[in-house]
Amino acid sequence: MARTLIHGAVIVTATEDAWIPEGYLIVEGNRIQEVGTGAYQGSQESFDRVIDAKGKLAMPGLINTHGHAAMTLLRGYADDLPLQTWLEERCWPVEDKMTADDIFWGTQLAILEMLKGGTTTFTDMYFEMDGVAQAAKDSGIRAVLSRGLIGFPPKGEASRAQAIEFNEKWHGAANNRITVTFGPHAPYTCPPDYLKTVVAVSEELNLPIQIHLSETAREVSECIEQHGMTPIKLMEELGVFSRPTLAAHCVHLTDEDIEILAKYDVRVAHNPDSNLKLGSGVAPVTKMLEKGVTVGLGTDGAASNNNLDMFEEMRMAAMLHKGVNQDAIAVNAFKALEMATTDGARALFLEESLGTLQAGALADLLLLDIDQPHFYPRHNMIAHLVYSAGSRDVTHVLIDGELVVEDRKVLTMDEQKIYAEIERVCARLFAE
Amino acid sequence: MARTLIHGAVIVTATEDAWIPEGYLIVEGNRIQEVGTGAYQGSQESFDRVIDAKGKLAMPGLINTHGHAAMTLLRGYADDLPLQTWLEERCWPVEDKMTADDIFWGTQLAILEMLKGGTTTFTDMYFEMDGVAQAAKDSGIRAVLSRGLIGFPPKGEASRAQAIEFNEKWHGAANNRITVTFGPHAPYTCPPDYLKTVVAVSEELNLPIQIHLSETAREVSECIEQHGMTPIKLMEELGVFSRPTLAAHCVHLTDEDIEILAKYDVRVAHNPDSNLKLGSGVAPVTKMLEKGVTVGLGTDGAASNNNLDMFEEMRMAAMLHKGVNQDAIAVNAFKALEMATTDGARALFLEESLGTLQAGALADLLLLDIDQPHFYPRHNMIAHLVYSAGSRDVTHVLIDGELVVEDRKVLTMDEQKIYAEIERVCARLFAE
Repeated sequence: MARTLIHGAVIVTATEDAWIPEGYLIVEGNRIQEVGTGAYQGSQESFDRVIDAKGKLAMPGLINTHGHAAMTLLRGYADDLPLQTWLEERCWPVEDKMTADDIFWGTQLAILEMLKGGTTTFTDMYFEMDGVAQAAKDSGIRAVLSRGLIGFPPKGEASRAQAIEFNEKWHGAANNRITVTFGPHAPYTCPPDYLKTVVAVSEELNLPIQIHLSETAREVSECIEQHGMTPIKLMEELGVFSRPTLAAHCVHLTDEDIEILAKYDVRVAHNPDSNLKLGSGVAPVTKMLEKGVTVGLGTDGAASNNNLDMFEEMRMAAMLHKGVNQDAIAVNAFKALEMATTDGARALFLEESLGTLQAGALADLLLLDIDQPHFYPRHNMIAHLVYSAGSRDVTHVLIDGELVVEDRKVLTMDEQKIYAEIERVCARLFAE
Repeated sequence: MARTLIHGAVIVTATEDAWIPEGYLIVEGNRIQEVGTGAYQGSQESFDRVIDAKGKLAMPGLINTHGHAAMTLLRGYADDLPLQTWLEERCWPVEDKMTADDIFWGTQLAILEMLKGGTTTFTDMYFEMDGVAQAAKDSGIRAVLSRGLIGFPPKGEASRAQAIEFNEKWHGAANNRITVTFGPHAPYTCPPDYLKTVVAVSEELNLPIQIHLSETAREVSECIEQHGMTPIKLMEELGVFSRPTLAAHCVHLTDEDIEILAKYDVRVAHNPDSNLKLGSGVAPVTKMLEKGVTVGLGTDGAASNNNLDMFEEMRMAAMLHKGVNQDAIAVNAFKALEMATTDGARALFLEESLGTLQAGALADLLLLDIDQPHFYPRHNMIAHLVYSAGSRDVTHVLIDGELVVEDRKVLTMDEQKIYAEIERVCARLFAE
């Protein structure tokens, strides 16, 4: 198995609110074999690759727990609009025209951006998912993928069949870098009977569920009107939460909703930027954390963000809840880091081997150039990561033990070709 | 006079919600002589410098309307603490130990970070201001500087005398890059009688005033308790607003306060990140904008942010008010861009010649590398600047017609020396 030595780095393991001022990492195959303190004293000859990381900081790769990668195609196309106009008049008409080829290239653009910004695992719910899985496989990124299910006839049956087929084809592919979850879109797009069949199939195939829940106030009030209960309560009633579930957004929650999320250990993908930009509101993250709910971070799609920058989400998570709660100790820096790493892994049911730098963990990690003004003085590297750092500080990314980004270049992708293909597919998609 | 040609760039002039897909800029001396559309057809021989800006975007330099530059020394030293603990137990004891040398180097670090991130004008209120002015002069940045005034005896008289002396020495220095304002710290640190003398001196010296106003709920309630009125109303009563005034923060405002700000054309420095991080709250920016109040953006000091990144402030201003007001059309991208450029210039009473790219304006501008995934597809470059761009996309900065940053290197500063000096001064300042 290939062996890599990374030495001379500041190391943030994300297992504790502390850092190693100088240390080294040994990667063997796709796992971290050793995290050491001080200068590496052994021989460097036994390694296939040695990275001198002086002036750099090593940390676990960032885990994006919610998104729609191909929506990069819509970046900047529909901003500063009311939610319904945004969705119905801008997003949907373009999505109706999207081909498998469009989605393949839109996803490539998303992966390119995520890799450059230190995201090593992304989550996706969309359609034409074969292209998404292929792009993930080829690029070297780790991915948790769902064929999004809209439950209304006639599409409901067909999309569920596609999801089952997608699972057969891709679950565990690329040395287990690709895992599949079952993705009913939302309670307002999947009627109760349909959701029950989803639960049954999810159980049969032993897949977790991912779903959008309680993103907007309107969605919640319409659910109460139609079903006599909140979306969260409805999911409990329908047995969705009997399955391992990742719930995206969870902005508008009652105290009882939060109790339900905690009771069933539902994992939450918090998307602070998207929720702000669409005017959806601010999720009650501090309350969820108090009740022990696992909260990961997500970018959502680039139509509502408009980038796929997990450093921004981490920073926003640490800043926003302090401000809106007028409480300067809410969501401290280390908690925000956990949300983007260890809690993110938990949100995706991958916590056994992902999210930290420690012996035995999967070797998904990044290096940051900290020889820059915003990393001085060196009082607190955890605070610097969360409050000062940015995605463009990332220089190197390893995923599953493989070097994917080196000196800011993505080794597995052809950047200029992707830009050219994006222009090509957009010329057709956005033609009058 | 030296002449510079920048050609092949996407150009955002900030005079309208639009961009030039390909254009050129001619700079003569310290002014923009021409903004042209298409490829530059003339001879390049008459220019002292030609910058090929293909794959780049040119925009006005960012204007930071509030901060305390030397507080970079405290970056990461006091996070996730309640405001009073932060201020009284962490910031003040260190500031009490700060020497002129510390402040000189802390300011250099701040300027280095700001220049790399495309900030071409910064605002400062601190003490030992000669070093701040010297650092601004040497680095080539534009600066609006105040000796911060604490009005209690015995320091009140001395600091006012220092402010007057500082003005004599520095106002208009460095080819007018440095301008001086009068800086009473806040109503809770400057008693009414003292503020009246400040108004008189400000009038005599013909200087605008900058002051912190209504940053926290506690400050407002204590002011009402003590003076029977809000800080804004108190300032009106004391005649402060009879002078051109820049008010920082303005988080906790009554509707009457906003009317007063509008009536006297008080300019506001909105610091969204700092207000969030310290748990101060969210300023009523949409209401201020509705009433016609000029709102610029500021980072505040690096102890409460923790970086000096105007792209983050611009993005935050565009996102935050949508979210907390649950209104996806609040503070659109162009308004956020204006807040960081043209409105920022207005906030500093420099709008006559600063904040835009147009013939006759001061040549303060930056170039961004837009050959990156988060700038594709090219639906809307204004949206991309605000919602997708980051400070590390900046490659070149011109200030007052001079090239200060080239290919991400600050030409006027010794980066490694600054880091070494920061470590030296921090070793003493933070010694147990």
